[in-house]
Amino acid sequence: MSQDNNCIFCQIIAGRQAAEIVYRDGLVTAFQDIHPIAPIHILITPNKHIPSLNQITTDDQQLIGYLFSIAKKLAAQYEIEQSGYRLVLNTGKDAGQSVLHIHLHLLGGKSMPVKFG
Amino acid sequence: MSQDNNCIFCQIIAGRQAAEIVYRDGLVTAFQDIHPIAPIHILITPNKHIPSLNQITTDDQQLIGYLFSIAKKLAAQYEIEQSGYRLVLNTGKDAGQSVLHIHLHLLGGKSMPVKFG
Repeated sequence: MSQDNNCIFCQIIAGRQAAEIVYRDGLVTAFQDIHPIAPIHILITPNKHIPSLNQITTDDQQLIGYLFSIAKKLAAQYEIEQSGYRLVLNTGKDAGQSVLHIHLHLLGGKSMPVKFG
Repeated sequence: MSQDNNCIFCQIIAGRQAAEIVYRDGLVTAFQDIHPIAPIHILITPNKHIPSLNQITTDDQQLIGYLFSIAKKLAAQYEIEQSGYRLVLNTGKDAGQSVLHIHLHLLGGKSMPVKFG
């Protein structure tokens, strides 16, 4: 598994940095956002270090799709499947990407703003 | 291809409803959002009618990943690959999903709010 020792999310995935992990398998790790902007705010990351969507290859397509399957599973687990949930993937400065390791935000538990961009 | 005649996005995909199409292939259609909330605001939809992420199956995983490959390609085409872009997938009422056909929002061309949820 390709990892970057300086990446905080790689450290969380490797268990060298504390986080409230809510899901983990061989491909994906999910944990609570430490600065939540909604009652439910979970980050879903590939275990493999990919800085952003700009670096994905055709080979990563299945993995990106898999992140969404896990998001759907977590939405059911947190009982927001029916009330609704927002998935956000930020790339680069204008979007406010803060950690250079792909992470999908899963947000729910309240009515969310329509101005999300 | 599974289509729903009452779905506005299925009608756009089939060419029976006008839209400013920016990309089209056998699996995916992308077009301008008619109510943009950012200078660049494109909707990327699977041609197959899937109401929301709640209805995806394991078989759809590759297709969902493919939407993101197209998003990356369009971000490069619209020259927001480096400045940054936000991808948003809304499911259900709390997220404000307005059309019951999966659509990925591609947003860019400005610095975007950090309160996206």
